[in-house]
Amino acid sequence: MARSARVAVWRGGAEVTSETVPLPSPGQGETLVEIDLATVCGSDHHTVSGRRPGACPSVLGHEGVGRIAGTGQRVVWGVTVSCGACDRCLRGLTAKCRRVRKLGHERYEPGWPLSGTYATHVLLPAGTAVVPVPDTLTDEVAAPAGCATATVMAALERAGSLNGRRVLIVGAGMLGLTAVAAAAGAGAAEIVVSDVEPARLELAVDFGATSTLPAAQTLPTVDVALDFSGAAPAIEEALAALDIGGSLLLVGSVSPGPAIRLDPEDVVRGWRSVSGVHNYEPRHLEQAVAFLAASTRPWADLVEAPVGLDRVGSLLTGELGRPRASVRPANN
Amino acid sequence: MARSARVAVWRGGAEVTSETVPLPSPGQGETLVEIDLATVCGSDHHTVSGRRPGACPSVLGHEGVGRIAGTGQRVVWGVTVSCGACDRCLRGLTAKCRRVRKLGHERYEPGWPLSGTYATHVLLPAGTAVVPVPDTLTDEVAAPAGCATATVMAALERAGSLNGRRVLIVGAGMLGLTAVAAAAGAGAAEIVVSDVEPARLELAVDFGATSTLPAAQTLPTVDVALDFSGAAPAIEEALAALDIGGSLLLVGSVSPGPAIRLDPEDVVRGWRSVSGVHNYEPRHLEQAVAFLAASTRPWADLVEAPVGLDRVGSLLTGELGRPRASVRPANN
Repeated sequence: MARSARVAVWRGGAEVTSETVPLPSPGQGETLVEIDLATVCGSDHHTVSGRRPGACPSVLGHEGVGRIAGTGQRVVWGVTVSCGACDRCLRGLTAKCRRVRKLGHERYEPGWPLSGTYATHVLLPAGTAVVPVPDTLTDEVAAPAGCATATVMAALERAGSLNGRRVLIVGAGMLGLTAVAAAAGAGAAEIVVSDVEPARLELAVDFGATSTLPAAQTLPTVDVALDFSGAAPAIEEALAALDIGGSLLLVGSVSPGPAIRLDPEDVVRGWRSVSGVHNYEPRHLEQAVAFLAASTRPWADLVEAPVGLDRVGSLLTGELGRPRASVRPANN
Repeated sequence: MARSARVAVWRGGAEVTSETVPLPSPGQGETLVEIDLATVCGSDHHTVSGRRPGACPSVLGHEGVGRIAGTGQRVVWGVTVSCGACDRCLRGLTAKCRRVRKLGHERYEPGWPLSGTYATHVLLPAGTAVVPVPDTLTDEVAAPAGCATATVMAALERAGSLNGRRVLIVGAGMLGLTAVAAAAGAGAAEIVVSDVEPARLELAVDFGATSTLPAAQTLPTVDVALDFSGAAPAIEEALAALDIGGSLLLVGSVSPGPAIRLDPEDVVRGWRSVSGVHNYEPRHLEQAVAFLAASTRPWADLVEAPVGLDRVGSLLTGELGRPRASVRPANN
């Protein structure tokens, strides 16, 4: 095994440098993972473009699959590192731990240099969820489990049963398409998908959409709406599409944006609700792996062919043809 | 027993006429009730003032206690009359039945003249919840069960467990005070009550508030907020007071008003939610009676001394010293 790791350190804009870090011996509760494939979450694109604040310099990347150093066990892992002892952890909101750290979100510092997945190795601190991956799942399919898939599992749990429900999914990127497949698996009666990009709407059909709509078209009435777009006008339209007793789950609003208008009387008389979901709990990562392992949807089609670590800078600033770019450290 | 009923028919503004209606023989599933005491829900004040649209002419009034004609069984009853067969009824949203009729909300017509509680009798159609009242509950305490108390039970069910939680209650009228007592009974760690009227805040302490705040003061951080004020600025302040994972339940917004501003990113990152509650299901009426029967709070203090049916017009347009006015048909 190598004695050192290589990490891609983001230094602002498209500038990414390659650094070498000595491989640590994992301490109590820590897990050192050799990364096979990292996928590129949309939030990294947001960070690099400046649409949301982020620590800099930092090792970005938080979605990936790899093997535990020493044992070779193939695993995925969570985004958040939680203390397990604060009031929020004790209430079951470990993602909102008062001392939370996040993979791929922390400043590049000697205390935890292997903190992101655009690297040959990542050191998962105690308090990170780690879930084994069955061999049947390819790297491309497994890698998004730790952010996209698990977050969708959390959103669906919060939405309640979708069996027989009319579901609207706004935004057919990685999370939206995952939600389409999950809603289909949960027995939704209708799955309407809205997006600005026609190519994504075509993909949505492959994942279980019963109908698709270009953005800004009149929406049908639904019981549950899930927004992955984060776009205020789209959120207001989704809200207006809710039937009596309907729920709107907000997932995509992870960068600053305008407020939406909410009519309190409409919420009250309609027994409507608007709820937010951000990150997830360890059980959702387990559900994510089980969900992907049981799914026959064309997940691998959602991931671009991987590049090496030396290409991370251009990857984060470039255009994407598919919902996820990917990085395979062994490629260079 | 009398052969005819007297009803107070609202004809707009403060104009209320007294009409005599032959007593019907209840049909299949119908229940004829002789009214002992009707309490005056705030929504009737809204209707008469023009703040919300309402059928006119109509027999207003939907909160009351009385005895079933023939058997003498003392009962309270629900606000909504549901078909039990439509999609919403089958989904458990009987209050939002597609063919819903509401006590005290329908046009005064020969088909159902005994449709409100400002009358000597009310005819409860099939599909109305009817719940027996123990003798230990006085009329003043039992009468609000069918609207105020049961609606609060529905709101608390939607809020989830309040045990150990910090709770904010905005608006200390009949529903707000009921929510204070229910939150105290449910083991809330803190119960902060906000209202524009100092006299109501004093009452709130008697019902279990741990602290009280005049409106527009800075609110503490809470886990659950319940709004009974329906005032947009108060709702925005309650929303801003929610901790991570916090829920805002809207109950008071039952007349048209301005929209509130909701920051999607704040909802998402904070795992926050905003939900509406309007009317309730039959189980909540049963819970309301059981709750009042077990409570030792000074409920009777919340109800003004009753007037006769001839005073309904002035009652609906006048000022109130307590949260509920009341009408005792036997008084004239």
